[in-house]
Amino acid sequence: MPVEMKLSRIIISDINDHQVIYLKEVDGERTFPIVIGIAEASSIDRRVKNFETSRPLTHDLICLVVETLGAELDSVLISDVEGHTFYARLRMRKDGEVFEVDSRPSDAIAVAVSCDPPLSIYVEEKVLEDAIAEA
Amino acid sequence: MPVEMKLSRIIISDINDHQVIYLKEVDGERTFPIVIGIAEASSIDRRVKNFETSRPLTHDLICLVVETLGAELDSVLISDVEGHTFYARLRMRKDGEVFEVDSRPSDAIAVAVSCDPPLSIYVEEKVLEDAIAEA
Repeated sequence: MPVEMKLSRIIISDINDHQVIYLKEVDGERTFPIVIGIAEASSIDRRVKNFETSRPLTHDLICLVVETLGAELDSVLISDVEGHTFYARLRMRKDGEVFEVDSRPSDAIAVAVSCDPPLSIYVEEKVLEDAIAEA
Repeated sequence: MPVEMKLSRIIISDINDHQVIYLKEVDGERTFPIVIGIAEASSIDRRVKNFETSRPLTHDLICLVVETLGAELDSVLISDVEGHTFYARLRMRKDGEVFEVDSRPSDAIAVAVSCDPPLSIYVEEKVLEDAIAEA
């Protein structure tokens, strides 16, 4: 059963190539970090802080593409973890059908926070347990 | 009449926030620069150099989304310029119909080089003339 999560912290360091975001249970206290790249971290940070941009940014472009093709972004599912690598799926809906795309969690979460309203983020229970054990 | 262009140079500077790519006419010598961000420049650079990545990068995700929704990426058109800001459209096709999405040229070109085969890149004649006059 997937657990709904929310973005609880973004830690951006100028002196480090790897940035960290934390996801926390919506209906609980469990939390875990995901290491992501600076481009995706900046993208998430800008959207969370509601920075206005005159042109569509990269993750906005994904939202626009989906909308233009008559589909709708649905949610993000963090579906697996192997070592420190998390796997996610970006879920879309079109004509009542669900379409899933393999994605890095960083991109999927950047898309989630670029949407208005933001997409729900879920993590598989097993992945949550493994991530907490590993953290 | 749009002019077909190719990516001729990518200049990435670690000490500068703004990177530069050059487009050059496929059937001619005219060329002009576009200033882009580091994330998009790195994305273009990685794809042009055929760096293998184990996970889909952000612009690959756009290709995957389009494909998953049963559409096809068609081409990139740099359609306008205002001062130093270029405007582009990412063109897609589905069931014989063309769909266009407003994009920054950097993202559109990063998508173009992430596709296999790469998408054609066009620029409106008027935009090419203005860009050359400005450069």
